[in-house]
Amino acid sequence: MPSDSLGGFIGIPAKAVAHDVKKAAAERLAGLATPAGALGRLGDTAVWLAGVTGSCPPPAPANVRAVIFAGDHGVSEFGVSAYPREITALMVDTFVAGRAGVSVLAKQHGVSLRVLDIGVDVGFGRFSRTVSAHKIRRSSGAIQFEDALSRTECENAVIAGMTIAAEEIAAGADLLIGGDMGIGNTTPSAALIAACLGLPAGEVTGRGTGVDGGALAHKESVIQEALDRAGDRVEDPIELLAALGGADLAAGVGFLVGAARAGVPVLLDGLISVAEAVVAERIAPGATEWFLAGHRSTEPAQSLALAKMGLEPLLDLGMRLGEGSGAMAAVPLVRSAAAVLTDMALLADLLG
Amino acid sequence: MPSDSLGGFIGIPAKAVAHDVKKAAAERLAGLATPAGALGRLGDTAVWLAGVTGSCPPPAPANVRAVIFAGDHGVSEFGVSAYPREITALMVDTFVAGRAGVSVLAKQHGVSLRVLDIGVDVGFGRFSRTVSAHKIRRSSGAIQFEDALSRTECENAVIAGMTIAAEEIAAGADLLIGGDMGIGNTTPSAALIAACLGLPAGEVTGRGTGVDGGALAHKESVIQEALDRAGDRVEDPIELLAALGGADLAAGVGFLVGAARAGVPVLLDGLISVAEAVVAERIAPGATEWFLAGHRSTEPAQSLALAKMGLEPLLDLGMRLGEGSGAMAAVPLVRSAAAVLTDMALLADLLG
Repeated sequence: MPSDSLGGFIGIPAKAVAHDVKKAAAERLAGLATPAGALGRLGDTAVWLAGVTGSCPPPAPANVRAVIFAGDHGVSEFGVSAYPREITALMVDTFVAGRAGVSVLAKQHGVSLRVLDIGVDVGFGRFSRTVSAHKIRRSSGAIQFEDALSRTECENAVIAGMTIAAEEIAAGADLLIGGDMGIGNTTPSAALIAACLGLPAGEVTGRGTGVDGGALAHKESVIQEALDRAGDRVEDPIELLAALGGADLAAGVGFLVGAARAGVPVLLDGLISVAEAVVAERIAPGATEWFLAGHRSTEPAQSLALAKMGLEPLLDLGMRLGEGSGAMAAVPLVRSAAAVLTDMALLADLLG
Repeated sequence: MPSDSLGGFIGIPAKAVAHDVKKAAAERLAGLATPAGALGRLGDTAVWLAGVTGSCPPPAPANVRAVIFAGDHGVSEFGVSAYPREITALMVDTFVAGRAGVSVLAKQHGVSLRVLDIGVDVGFGRFSRTVSAHKIRRSSGAIQFEDALSRTECENAVIAGMTIAAEEIAAGADLLIGGDMGIGNTTPSAALIAACLGLPAGEVTGRGTGVDGGALAHKESVIQEALDRAGDRVEDPIELLAALGGADLAAGVGFLVGAARAGVPVLLDGLISVAEAVVAERIAPGATEWFLAGHRSTEPAQSLALAKMGLEPLLDLGMRLGEGSGAMAAVPLVRSAAAVLTDMALLADLLG
């Protein structure tokens, strides 16, 4: 689709989940040979999975596919992170080498993992053609001073994300994960959540890779300046992403929109992933029904956004690694949910 | 060992964990290509695993072995559970058929699972010889009126548990799980925790399989009557188990003591498992260092006992299924912990 057509895509809803199948799954769950509710969130997850797969009992996700959206952010030159922006490109190399945290977990769980340079501050040629196939630009703008992206760049990034989702779905994905890599990326992500939830910077600012004291106060002021600068442009989701987001974040949003409209479920990760999910819901109403929260990060904005979306995460391990690692760690639990609803005895069998 | 020698076993400490290896693991963790502490409890678990395996980085547990200790309890005739005691034997059949919740999860995670009738209210012959190989008696006593076990039965049950641990270790176990099955078993388990922590019944009584209102108040009074009846006999751990425990619980304690003295780590489950762990620490000082908490159950006494032992569970999914299912659900996280510490790039590699 041409980028100038994107306006027409705003508001097209997500595919409807199968509420009748969800209901059947809730009934099956209640009939298992176990006290009512004893499976806790594992049971809830099984019911969700029935709704998004349209099958009761639901099959366990066998072709889980994760994509990491890498990009740099102008804010990283202004003291919002404990690490220099050069780390972003080095970490892309680490993903390619299969040695990042999420790579190790993906291997353990048999999950396909792909890293894409969407907006890393390096030229074409620094990574392979495959890695830079969807590159939008070198770094996004410093959001306290300027827009992260032009409107056209933003539209192209969202379309890239939709295309990437379509590629993964064509490869057979039955569960998707969007991961992130980008020094400074918790700043625009927190700004996106603040804008969508109508909160001031003070409520959404977290320690990210580990800033505290004066640096944390500075990060908060950067987010507030960005919010003030964007003003009411944040009412339009593409303007919002152009003003406060970044190329990698806009692509991540497009990925979620593409998944929800195609009816493929997504396991959300931490702050960046959840910020993208909040924006995706504004582009594709109903998208949230396709999302399962993988983990609770230590970032306050992530918990605020999850609560707003009505999502309760599977894991709460104090992880704040990014990369999609929290979602990846939760993959076996999603499979467990499907397995218990499929294979456990029913109370009727027991007493039969 | 003859049962009259058991007195001499009280106080023999657990094997020492390798604190130097733990320290090396903490240093390796700090050197990974990730912000300090970003792996959260996954990192802590990797360090624990290094200490209990004596290897840095630690190998992922490959031969995880679980044993379910099944038994009935006199209290189940007195309105403390939402289910009749006949369910215990039917659930043993369900484990044998591989169709219980924990069976399904064990299959998913490649964990060996064995169910043993320690004190189910059925005669020999109801189950196979293998299942009843360590049977102590038919049901344990109703602890509000009488001792759960005679001293000899209690010693024999503890010894059976030690023997069972030794069998699993001989089969190559590198991580053990003790599960439970027994209608009414949350009542004696809560009583054991109350006795060890010096708490009144009101603080430890939970809903178990789902009692509430008047039944919950009645359950609390049963626990308090049992505590009052036992008096200061609870200072001696064998007297404690005889007065307030049960055959299955005493065997579970012996299993943990055997594991900790042999130096094989254990992933704890919910209320029953944690009650056994509290008693095991009193028999084998230092045993707690060999224990990792798999999940937080909805039972208040479990959280109180975990806090007392300084253990923070990996999962908190609102599960209250028993059977070892919470620990079983956490097995992939233990393996993930080993994998990240072993295979992730070091920051030094990145900047190399």
